[in-house]
Amino acid sequence: MSEKIYRAWLPFLDADVPETCKTPAEAAEYELEAGCAALKLPEPRLEADPAMGEGYVVSGGDGGTVITGGEPGLLYGVYAFLMAKAAGEDVPAGLQRPFYGLRMLNCWDNADGTIERGYSGRSLWFEGGRLAWDGARIRQLGRLLASVGVNVLCVNNVNVRAEAELLIEDYLDELARLAAAFRPFGVRLMVSIDFSRPLAHGVGTADPLDEGVRRWWKQRADAVWRAVPDLAGFLVKADSEHRPGPFTYGRSHADGANMLAEAVAPHGGVLVWRAFVYNCQQDWRDTATDRPMAAYDTYAPLDGQFADNVILQVKHGPFDFQVREPVSPTLYAMPRTRLALELQLAQEYTGHQIDLYAMNPMWRELAEELPPEKVCAVAAVSNLGRDANYTGHPFAAANLYGYGRYAWQPRVSPREVLRRWARLTYALPEGQQDALVEMLMGSRGVYEKYIAPLGLCWMVCPGVHYGPSPCGYEYDAWGTYHRANRDAVGIDRTAKGTGYAAQYPAQIRDKYESLETCPDNLKLFFHRLRYDYVMADGRTLIQRIYDDHFEGCAEAEAMAQTLQTLSLPAEDGEEARLRMEKQLANARQWRDVVNTFFHRLSGVDDARGRKIYD
Amino acid sequence: MSEKIYRAWLPFLDADVPETCKTPAEAAEYELEAGCAALKLPEPRLEADPAMGEGYVVSGGDGGTVITGGEPGLLYGVYAFLMAKAAGEDVPAGLQRPFYGLRMLNCWDNADGTIERGYSGRSLWFEGGRLAWDGARIRQLGRLLASVGVNVLCVNNVNVRAEAELLIEDYLDELARLAAAFRPFGVRLMVSIDFSRPLAHGVGTADPLDEGVRRWWKQRADAVWRAVPDLAGFLVKADSEHRPGPFTYGRSHADGANMLAEAVAPHGGVLVWRAFVYNCQQDWRDTATDRPMAAYDTYAPLDGQFADNVILQVKHGPFDFQVREPVSPTLYAMPRTRLALELQLAQEYTGHQIDLYAMNPMWRELAEELPPEKVCAVAAVSNLGRDANYTGHPFAAANLYGYGRYAWQPRVSPREVLRRWARLTYALPEGQQDALVEMLMGSRGVYEKYIAPLGLCWMVCPGVHYGPSPCGYEYDAWGTYHRANRDAVGIDRTAKGTGYAAQYPAQIRDKYESLETCPDNLKLFFHRLRYDYVMADGRTLIQRIYDDHFEGCAEAEAMAQTLQTLSLPAEDGEEARLRMEKQLANARQWRDVVNTFFHRLSGVDDARGRKIYD
Repeated sequence: MSEKIYRAWLPFLDADVPETCKTPAEAAEYELEAGCAALKLPEPRLEADPAMGEGYVVSGGDGGTVITGGEPGLLYGVYAFLMAKAAGEDVPAGLQRPFYGLRMLNCWDNADGTIERGYSGRSLWFEGGRLAWDGARIRQLGRLLASVGVNVLCVNNVNVRAEAELLIEDYLDELARLAAAFRPFGVRLMVSIDFSRPLAHGVGTADPLDEGVRRWWKQRADAVWRAVPDLAGFLVKADSEHRPGPFTYGRSHADGANMLAEAVAPHGGVLVWRAFVYNCQQDWRDTATDRPMAAYDTYAPLDGQFADNVILQVKHGPFDFQVREPVSPTLYAMPRTRLALELQLAQEYTGHQIDLYAMNPMWRELAEELPPEKVCAVAAVSNLGRDANYTGHPFAAANLYGYGRYAWQPRVSPREVLRRWARLTYALPEGQQDALVEMLMGSRGVYEKYIAPLGLCWMVCPGVHYGPSPCGYEYDAWGTYHRANRDAVGIDRTAKGTGYAAQYPAQIRDKYESLETCPDNLKLFFHRLRYDYVMADGRTLIQRIYDDHFEGCAEAEAMAQTLQTLSLPAEDGEEARLRMEKQLANARQWRDVVNTFFHRLSGVDDARGRKIYD
Repeated sequence: MSEKIYRAWLPFLDADVPETCKTPAEAAEYELEAGCAALKLPEPRLEADPAMGEGYVVSGGDGGTVITGGEPGLLYGVYAFLMAKAAGEDVPAGLQRPFYGLRMLNCWDNADGTIERGYSGRSLWFEGGRLAWDGARIRQLGRLLASVGVNVLCVNNVNVRAEAELLIEDYLDELARLAAAFRPFGVRLMVSIDFSRPLAHGVGTADPLDEGVRRWWKQRADAVWRAVPDLAGFLVKADSEHRPGPFTYGRSHADGANMLAEAVAPHGGVLVWRAFVYNCQQDWRDTATDRPMAAYDTYAPLDGQFADNVILQVKHGPFDFQVREPVSPTLYAMPRTRLALELQLAQEYTGHQIDLYAMNPMWRELAEELPPEKVCAVAAVSNLGRDANYTGHPFAAANLYGYGRYAWQPRVSPREVLRRWARLTYALPEGQQDALVEMLMGSRGVYEKYIAPLGLCWMVCPGVHYGPSPCGYEYDAWGTYHRANRDAVGIDRTAKGTGYAAQYPAQIRDKYESLETCPDNLKLFFHRLRYDYVMADGRTLIQRIYDDHFEGCAEAEAMAQTLQTLSLPAEDGEEARLRMEKQLANARQWRDVVNTFFHRLSGVDDARGRKIYD
């Protein structure tokens, strides 16, 4: 890759934002001048209106265009204006405001420079146990985030380890400098903290109801906000996957979260508490415990008990970012709690930023299942890293771009988002652009077809989470089982089974409980079915599994053909084609392994006589 | 563990061998005096007879006992005398000589201090990219090795990486010092080398027929033997699992080995060439390629082409140290080649030095299948590490002890070896000692029963190689498949299948080809059988699988009971019991996972109604 800093969807902003820009207002002025010069546009007038906050209006009149906005609304308005012009589209009319106030990225960056589930290289701001970064690259990232309105960046892994503990202690000066680097872009930092940290400071307990613990956290928060006055808050993963938490002290998660919330409240901070709690040491022999039920069981009874500045962050599905899950029932169950929806841009189970997987279509489906008003914030696990193009696959940038657009307006049209991203990034001839957009629109469906079928999760290689391993998680302790045998597959999660479906509001519950109304793509999530079960379209379950896998792989091959036709810039084109080769190998492996697995079990041949290996 | 250095089977040699002992003769004098004092014995006279080399005679007469021997035969004689006396047994009469001249340990120690497939802690002589060791611990190890006659120690991993490359370059001084530390014990060092190393020195090729390459290796060998004049030789893993080798240059393995052999020959060095070559990027869809056939296909045609000082080191089985494999056909096929038999003390697939697995009974079976005369040397992958007791599990020391005994006399009685080890190590009351010996004698059989059945290999967790994963290697690239489906399991390796059996001499081939004569414990190695296949004892295959797994687990529980009855020293007892708890969990997991796996496939219930999970 070139030495030049990657511009992603802002190729027309060729010069770097100078270090001398310290505020969003200054950045707005700079970007507007630079952008208008590059696009050969008359320069609009900027009018600051602090009351507008993140909102902005772009208005045209006799005296030319005026962009009015708050902080950082003015900067958002500048980007909106420039991107619309660059794309040859209309500037949005009227007052523009984000749907969600907190539009967060959770970065799973470790202090040693690695990134947990990172597929774009090493951390952009950690190395060798310290915060350390390339200013120009950080400013470019800030610009990209601001251009789509992402406004909070949690800089360290929710699994807080080693020197990352020091972010709120010895490294506060460095944290303050990093905060300053992002400040011109309206991006506020957040920090993941370790619930048990008082223990390392001789407090003797981390019990949230202990007075010494409360005092320790209060003093710590005071020191942190002295160093970084606009810090957004703390993020906590507690009692999850071997992390410490309130359960150690017989306290509830409300006790734990509220204690920390009290410490950060005087500074206007939020306390984001992840609801990712389940038994990760389940015995596979135990068929009574059903992991998807865990978050609801833990949190629903606590509705109404959380402090005002606590945000409970809930993954979109009840498992863990599988390709197809129903919406987490916890998200319907806590009307008196501020909830954040957690998404994952990092393609942990969705192709490692090798396989194409555009997420806006998925999020749009989500918005149809779960009214966006049910939550007050969104968070996404970041797909960023030190790779020259920031996201490993150049097209994975569409998910970062699309996430900002979705967080600003969750009902935004996925096709419109992808078209705008493609137009800004590549300026392809129209036919090619349409081909790229349609390829991305369909990419999740293709991926879904060639991996585990019909809402069946976890047929993935353990640990690495790329490639098929039909029984990889079958006898493990993670609560992830399909219990496929020679006759049938799937877990009955209806009232006759584990009862999971009853965690939903009645209407949704009924839809899933009934085999007739449960959508095909979740049939095996909610029901255990025999291979000869006949689907609505007349096909047997086993034939549907075979068909999906053959089709998914053929569709991946068609995407590879499409990719060949695109006149992409050399570097992006090469990268995309290289990864597509790997995707094809992956798709073929999934197709054949899953088909063979079920063929060995069922003994049923493909009705269309296609090749299934023995 | 205590600070005191672990004595293993030599508890009566309480003081360390002093650093001032520089030769085996000096060590013999010291050990004899110290041992006789401790055991309150009249001290025999030592008589050096250089012509006897490694041999010795212990003779009694009017003037008292005389130990006569060469170098290091005299030292071997001293240990033999002392151990016999300590055990209260007769000293062996007449001339004692080792069956094999080279009795090697291959240590897979990496320069960074880790050990590949090491289960006893970090390396005893590498740390931070350098050779570094605790002299007292090394001398104790030397004593243990000499006491059972192990005479060659290859100090670095056959996968030569990072600073390990420098052992024959910048680190020669350190290597010489390490050689000096082992020299008093008659243990000569060996070094694993990287076939492609000339490339790093600007030679431009590693082609074994290139004059520059030959010259480079000659000069290198000259320098190495100048530093360590008694170095035993070089060990090479080439063209295997991504290692470089002669195939890169279109040369044969005879070309590669002979070139290196020529370089070490003037110094009396041997060139040990590992025959572990197979396609580790096999497509699981490919049923024509059969990994166990690879070594024979590669090497058998080269018989007679290797130089006199080349030793071809062949693993005992055609796969890779699985619990049950037939003897490698390569070992029968190369009468005009010097062969070394490769064993593995490190319990990679045999329980990680957590589960009990005494190996002498297995080696004895091997000696019955393969006349010991077929090979001229033995090598074993080491089970040593920096743990206080050197072998992780204190009973795993029995495999180190037993390996030396086996290498000295391959037809030695396993029970006698284990009894001697137990008596020397623990001096238990006789009933307890018998219980320990019988437990160890049966330990491999127990392990075999609760893991993959009847010669079916590779149902193990990928990567880690501990615990069950019935399909963990089934769709991977390693050439390791059982192809279990709802009706049958196993690979047909007869003439009607892959033809592997034809690689054996006719008599052995016929035994395996026929279902009637193929032993049960290899039935699924050689044959694909339906679950309803009826074994000689009237049981169906599926019932035999269930029975074995229930029995194996019950027998492991019985071993745990036995262990409770033994009056072991506190540290060893605690360690053994801790590990036994893990073994029981492992045995139960194997039992239930394998039974469930086959029950799901076959749909056949256990005839005796025991619990098989769904």
